[in-house]
Amino acid sequence: MTYCVGLKLNIGLVFMSDTLTNAGFDNINRNKKMHNWSIKNNRSIILLTSGNLATSQATVNIINEEIKNKTNETKNIMKLGSMFQIARAIGKILREVTSEYSDDGHEAENKYKSTFILGGQIKGDDPKLFLIYPEGNFIEASEDQAFFQIGETKYGKPILVRALEKDTNFAEAIKLLLVSFDSTMKGNVSVGLPIDLCILKKNIYNISDEMRINNKNNYFKQLSESWGNSLKQAVKKLPPFDFKQ
Amino acid sequence: MTYCVGLKLNIGLVFMSDTLTNAGFDNINRNKKMHNWSIKNNRSIILLTSGNLATSQATVNIINEEIKNKTNETKNIMKLGSMFQIARAIGKILREVTSEYSDDGHEAENKYKSTFILGGQIKGDDPKLFLIYPEGNFIEASEDQAFFQIGETKYGKPILVRALEKDTNFAEAIKLLLVSFDSTMKGNVSVGLPIDLCILKKNIYNISDEMRINNKNNYFKQLSESWGNSLKQAVKKLPPFDFKQ
Repeated sequence: MTYCVGLKLNIGLVFMSDTLTNAGFDNINRNKKMHNWSIKNNRSIILLTSGNLATSQATVNIINEEIKNKTNETKNIMKLGSMFQIARAIGKILREVTSEYSDDGHEAENKYKSTFILGGQIKGDDPKLFLIYPEGNFIEASEDQAFFQIGETKYGKPILVRALEKDTNFAEAIKLLLVSFDSTMKGNVSVGLPIDLCILKKNIYNISDEMRINNKNNYFKQLSESWGNSLKQAVKKLPPFDFKQ
Repeated sequence: MTYCVGLKLNIGLVFMSDTLTNAGFDNINRNKKMHNWSIKNNRSIILLTSGNLATSQATVNIINEEIKNKTNETKNIMKLGSMFQIARAIGKILREVTSEYSDDGHEAENKYKSTFILGGQIKGDDPKLFLIYPEGNFIEASEDQAFFQIGETKYGKPILVRALEKDTNFAEAIKLLLVSFDSTMKGNVSVGLPIDLCILKKNIYNISDEMRINNKNNYFKQLSESWGNSLKQAVKKLPPFDFKQ
């Protein structure tokens, strides 16, 4: 399973992804689900992938080959003029990869499908965040929806819905994301450490911060422990149920 | 969709269920998913149902007919000598109902399947809580697992995992359950008010409290509002993410 989140804050974009992939409980591997492409001072593009790993990897490889070959400008994300065009290009590649395996009768239901979160900024344009569906179409984050989740989204959603504010700083946003990831890992053992983190500050056009949080990270260990207590305290402070209401 | 929870506390059992049922977004109804049977000062039995409504209702109807007809003592939950035997009887009825519709070639994947939470106490025995699977087999709540959820379980699970304590009182436990239900209703619009609540105090063998919480309930309205703030405060109190870790 997978859990990835992309946040669109006023000050920039934050991306977080776990690294566990599994094809059954006895076939667990670690794979980076966070991919990035940059041109210094011009653009920075992040892609988070969930779903079928073969489809995700094929899509990323084709993106890389299109950049290298420079043959097809409409698919070269280093040349395209807007994040919208990049989302269309990646959606198209994803759709073609999925079709290649599912259109010739090798039915595997949802097994060839991948869902992506795409975010980034190109000089002259605002930071953008997209959710790309397995069919290749996509939606953009809006004022009302400041984040996208893919993979095992339910356990970690309530905290984001209730506590995320667009005008927060990066340290607070990452803390909130780690609480959301911790809740998800408590609910589904196939989502797991290490966690990849990446920050794109607005109007920088480069990756501002990038790191991997593993099981030796003291901050995350303490957060996970103290969050349980914090939740208990928060519940305790609410008035007890009133039978007379 | 459905969300139901059964708690096994040291002082007794608590049950909560929503009432929305849907067969598509344009076909939404309200149905009680909490059923109870009692013999004063001898036994009190609660059944929460999720999944296929036809299967759930047929099972409840057969339970009622078996009680009325008194023909088959092995299926009469008013006569059986332990909660374990009652769980077996209900599991068997559920299995038979499901088989009736799925065994003759009318394949509908999971559509005939229902999952139940069964709880209660019979004089001379401890309070018991079971999760009955669509196949009719079942598991019992243990020291390590003080609650069962059925239906849309993921949104409301983290708060239960982190904050539920077996030695709490009913007012605190119900508050926690309502927070869990509120999180679920925020995540899935097909889980909704009114909420049914039922309490079986230990060694009473009767329903101790029973009520319906609807959208006019001031306590629930306030809880839902203040929980968002409580969560925000709880997150704020944790130390911000430390980039140097």
